[in-house]
Amino acid sequence: MRTFKLTLAYDGSNYSGWQIQPGRITLQETLERALANITGEAIRVTASGRTDAGVHALGQVASFRSETHLSPEVLEKALNAELPHDMAVLSAVEARAGFHATGDAVKKRYRYVVHDGPIRDVFERRYQWHYRSRLDEAAMHRAAQGLRGTHDFSSFETHGSKRDSSIRTIFDIAVARGRGEKIDCLTIEIEADGFLYNMVRTIVGTLVEVGRGTQSHEWPSQVLAACDRQAAGQTAPPQGLFLMRVEY
Amino acid sequence: MRTFKLTLAYDGSNYSGWQIQPGRITLQETLERALANITGEAIRVTASGRTDAGVHALGQVASFRSETHLSPEVLEKALNAELPHDMAVLSAVEARAGFHATGDAVKKRYRYVVHDGPIRDVFERRYQWHYRSRLDEAAMHRAAQGLRGTHDFSSFETHGSKRDSSIRTIFDIAVARGRGEKIDCLTIEIEADGFLYNMVRTIVGTLVEVGRGTQSHEWPSQVLAACDRQAAGQTAPPQGLFLMRVEY
Repeated sequence: MRTFKLTLAYDGSNYSGWQIQPGRITLQETLERALANITGEAIRVTASGRTDAGVHALGQVASFRSETHLSPEVLEKALNAELPHDMAVLSAVEARAGFHATGDAVKKRYRYVVHDGPIRDVFERRYQWHYRSRLDEAAMHRAAQGLRGTHDFSSFETHGSKRDSSIRTIFDIAVARGRGEKIDCLTIEIEADGFLYNMVRTIVGTLVEVGRGTQSHEWPSQVLAACDRQAAGQTAPPQGLFLMRVEY
Repeated sequence: MRTFKLTLAYDGSNYSGWQIQPGRITLQETLERALANITGEAIRVTASGRTDAGVHALGQVASFRSETHLSPEVLEKALNAELPHDMAVLSAVEARAGFHATGDAVKKRYRYVVHDGPIRDVFERRYQWHYRSRLDEAAMHRAAQGLRGTHDFSSFETHGSKRDSSIRTIFDIAVARGRGEKIDCLTIEIEADGFLYNMVRTIVGTLVEVGRGTQSHEWPSQVLAACDRQAAGQTAPPQGLFLMRVEY
């Protein structure tokens, strides 16, 4: 048995998220079917984490084991020929035996895109949250810095997931207005050793309250300290969220 | 009767082009239906020109006459509430009586986007031609300069349209590699006093032959001089084409 590591990009718009669910089209199932068509094996794929319905990826990582004799380069080309056009394999490499995309991940980076102009962007509507009124990105960035470091992030976790611990470490968090033509866009990037369920989207929903001026820049730190989901802002919608990179 | 001028953006992916056709969903019909819902009038809308199925716009202009008492600002908001999310009114203004979006246009600018990297961009697949192999943008730009000026562009016209003349003036034509993160993208921008049917897409298909090295940079000028559609390259696919701006 050989172990492979895939780096994937996908437009999550037309999928019910990563994880296989009966009666729904999921990214995992689509990838497993493509692998079955290529190798003739029933292959189970594991991702660095599950992305929800409508969430996108520029650098999701998935691992699987196979008896195939195909080279990683051939496997990559065959997968890109087999997969629908809203999924792409950016790289395929052979990994050490025992490599596991979930368990071995040490760092992940997400990006969230908010469009804060009055008129919708018809081309980016699947890839951003259209917030409509202008946000103060400097206040949001300042507020976000209070979330850096190692904390109990249970205020930013949607219940229902069963995790041992809600302690995570945010290494980097930054809010910036988009470059060039995209002056009506904010990006919120967060890098951490792991994320609780809906953590990025709840942090974004909380920072937006600061950006629109209804809360002060100290408020997100108070939300964090409360360890209570009720203290935080709304959960931002899925289509603005991109899994950018996973490090091992 | 008042005359209005709308500036529109649309994602043409899900439409059979601008012009009303029985049994198909078109941009014109969608806009006219929205106007009927708002004003109660049967309004006929005229665009600066028809865009084909799959072609997009960042600055299409349309005009219509109406007895409505609504202000342009209110009309704009009502239209954006009424239209599907792949169409947006960027501005609505009242125009002088007799203003006609087709007849009064003096200059139009189109952009065409080519992705010349090996792996498809899952987010931009509806908005670019995925050409796969790397193109020489400097050779394409140099070749394009031979098309500047006033010429008979019948080599770049798909037959079937009945026009009085195939003489047009290209004021500006430029090929450039994309900015920032988009290094795998070329944009071809063309500004002219008018365009023949499929003219931009045929120019792009011709310049790509230069970019891939199968034709010299003098070839597009020779194609132009031939006044023969058979001399030109293929017609590039619609999804890379954007109507950027119309001047009056």
